[in-house]
Amino acid sequence: MSMPRLDGRVERGNRTRQLVLDRTVGIASVEGLEALSVGRLAMELGLSKSGVFALFGSKEELQLATVREAGRIFTERVVRPVMTHPAGVLRVWRLCEGWLEYSRGRVFPGGCFFYEVIAEFDARPGPVHDAVVRAQRDWSAYVERTVAEARAAGELHEDTDVPQLAFELIALMETANGVAVLHAEETAYRRARVGIAARLRAAAVDLVPVPQVP
Amino acid sequence: MSMPRLDGRVERGNRTRQLVLDRTVGIASVEGLEALSVGRLAMELGLSKSGVFALFGSKEELQLATVREAGRIFTERVVRPVMTHPAGVLRVWRLCEGWLEYSRGRVFPGGCFFYEVIAEFDARPGPVHDAVVRAQRDWSAYVERTVAEARAAGELHEDTDVPQLAFELIALMETANGVAVLHAEETAYRRARVGIAARLRAAAVDLVPVPQVP
Repeated sequence: MSMPRLDGRVERGNRTRQLVLDRTVGIASVEGLEALSVGRLAMELGLSKSGVFALFGSKEELQLATVREAGRIFTERVVRPVMTHPAGVLRVWRLCEGWLEYSRGRVFPGGCFFYEVIAEFDARPGPVHDAVVRAQRDWSAYVERTVAEARAAGELHEDTDVPQLAFELIALMETANGVAVLHAEETAYRRARVGIAARLRAAAVDLVPVPQVP
Repeated sequence: MSMPRLDGRVERGNRTRQLVLDRTVGIASVEGLEALSVGRLAMELGLSKSGVFALFGSKEELQLATVREAGRIFTERVVRPVMTHPAGVLRVWRLCEGWLEYSRGRVFPGGCFFYEVIAEFDARPGPVHDAVVRAQRDWSAYVERTVAEARAAGELHEDTDVPQLAFELIALMETANGVAVLHAEETAYRRARVGIAARLRAAAVDLVPVPQVP
């Protein structure tokens, strides 16, 4: 008859784990993953240090779990909403708009979580670096696939250089995030939208409408 | 007759200061400005902790001096080489090429110094944040001015949106740096050059040559 008690403990552990991760993604998006410490989290959340430690094992494990949690939130907010859209230019546009809204709306208080931690871990080897690289590659690949599908659907010129266009869209999005967070102003999001619309207009075949940026 | 000795001490102080800053810009470009500590620098450079402390006073002063030193190096490597070029599209192109070369050649071991520390300090208020914001604003303003001068010289269409074009050029450069440092590969630099050449070609009046990216 120990199962219910065990389940309760597992359930409680999962809730605490989620409580910790809700906090760590926020901290890391502002201060970076190095700012995460078991002691600080225990204090801020009113938990025991040993309890937090038991759930994550090490600072590195905590950092890796934080990267995974941020990836889950990112997928939920940016990728899932466009997954059911039919392939095409409008889907690329909505993906970019969704990303800019994710940054602008401060889903993470420091702006894009990955922008922050990529700069932090780009030149430091190790498992956290690898997890961050993987997340960035997955996102780039998703943007590329969305552009490739728009071309396959006949909405972009056949000679469209898909990785080049994806690179340029990502450049506009990420720089908008960086500038907007740094200067606490929003002009950069408009510039990104103007640039993205211009790139899509140049690549789209005639008759495929590209939204106007007001 | 104490002046020569005093001068000698000042001179020695300046040399030590430069020795410390040569090291801090490198560390900060890889690990961020928070990784700078008087103790670590003293140990790595074989200096006394009190000596380093006497030269900089505090960790914040050390961080600020490091931002200033990085700005000096950046100006020397990226801005000065194009200052004597006549205004025009080619000057914009050479400025962008110089920036990409500065990133690719790892003038700072972690890639662009400012890319690293902007992500670190974007959401943290204080004097270091302000210094980093100022450096980023100065650079943006310089790119904008170079584009505006090309338009004034009659080489860009009169209706060219200067801040928009400058934003797009900066986006391509910075993203190339971010991607290249993260994935340790150089395709991104080529993508940035292709994008920059396309932007300049679209904005340039007829007969103004824009370099081809091979």
